[in-house]
Amino acid sequence: MKHLEVCLTPALLPLYDLKGSIVVVIDIFRATSSISYGIDNGAAAIIPVASVEECLSYKDHGHLLGAERNGEVVAGFDFGNSPFSYTKEKVAGKTLVLTTTNGTHAINESKNADEIVIGSFLNLTAVCDYLVKQDKNVFLLCSGWKNKVNLEDTLFAGAVVNKLKDKFDAWCDSSVLAEDLYLCAQGNLNEYMKKTSHSERLKKLGIEKDIEFCLNVDILDSVPVIKNGQIVRSS
Amino acid sequence: MKHLEVCLTPALLPLYDLKGSIVVVIDIFRATSSISYGIDNGAAAIIPVASVEECLSYKDHGHLLGAERNGEVVAGFDFGNSPFSYTKEKVAGKTLVLTTTNGTHAINESKNADEIVIGSFLNLTAVCDYLVKQDKNVFLLCSGWKNKVNLEDTLFAGAVVNKLKDKFDAWCDSSVLAEDLYLCAQGNLNEYMKKTSHSERLKKLGIEKDIEFCLNVDILDSVPVIKNGQIVRSS
Repeated sequence: MKHLEVCLTPALLPLYDLKGSIVVVIDIFRATSSISYGIDNGAAAIIPVASVEECLSYKDHGHLLGAERNGEVVAGFDFGNSPFSYTKEKVAGKTLVLTTTNGTHAINESKNADEIVIGSFLNLTAVCDYLVKQDKNVFLLCSGWKNKVNLEDTLFAGAVVNKLKDKFDAWCDSSVLAEDLYLCAQGNLNEYMKKTSHSERLKKLGIEKDIEFCLNVDILDSVPVIKNGQIVRSS
Repeated sequence: MKHLEVCLTPALLPLYDLKGSIVVVIDIFRATSSISYGIDNGAAAIIPVASVEECLSYKDHGHLLGAERNGEVVAGFDFGNSPFSYTKEKVAGKTLVLTTTNGTHAINESKNADEIVIGSFLNLTAVCDYLVKQDKNVFLLCSGWKNKVNLEDTLFAGAVVNKLKDKFDAWCDSSVLAEDLYLCAQGNLNEYMKKTSHSERLKKLGIEKDIEFCLNVDILDSVPVIKNGQIVRSS
């Protein structure tokens, strides 16, 4: 039986060996939700880059450039990581270049993996079905918030554990913890997330609609994967 | 209102500022449980040291020397971190020198704190009452297992959050997560811990009785604190 492990923040990655595994990168608010939505809406590719400077270096390629830091669109960029910037009208057929505070950082930290998949509640079942088919060890990497553990990424990891625990050996302590947290929250994810309403990072103006959108379960059926450094729809 | 934060493993400590805070070091299986038991049983002091070599350097001081690595007593030492080595008969009036895989590491990593307290289920309420009296920010530091997150330390952090959340601002995501995990498990901590029965680290011969003992709640009323590098009973 293949293993499934959960890593609650990229800061803990040095403790794990990703070789031979599929890594699912998780940044529910909002990078991996928006990437999943963008790919499902027909974006040709999304190029994840680590820095704002690297993003700007794509200026003359005719791509759409997105940059988010600390939850806000970086000055001079057209969009950040709000899912509503990734609609069909905006991204179909286009290539996007994107840098975010946590999500693209986690993607970059996963380079040793055999394969990288982008996960979100929006495509939960599609991602799980894809993982079962690949028949490899699975590593769920929560992006967290500036390397701290966050609730929403842990909840998603728990949702995947809950769906896959009969098909994988998923008994690491972080898997058990994530699944039980998900079982506490699954009845109403949006209500559950209000527990962190004191958190500065979720109080930002206008992000409430984004949060609500990112907690929709299974409204997409595509699975974004990384091929040659670009996020594309898995074939 | 003072803050209460939870740090799920020492690997995440660089993300936090401990200055001015009381740190509660948590290593439920088994260092901080055994230390609490030993102090309650009248040990004069327990000196936590980082390495086996440092522990050995106390050889000619007439102290009891304990060393544990990977869950086992280090060869040449009389005891490790089993609570049953910390009974009244064995430790009353004695000074112990102790090094363990996770717990003493976490203590050493907490040096920037204003004060360090040793926590365990055995003295849960006593520790919580002590924290309320000090009127400082509180930082719950889970020792984890070799820097990975573990269930038992997270559960204890959650128990403290649950007891203190009306008296402290305890809304960081890790606090919410720890408390909800504790609420899942509180009905039967011992049964809950069997969820990790696949975990190699808990399968070790003879540790079942230790685990059961370390999950007793409120059987002690003393609070061990660090003074001048030594763990002593708080006055």
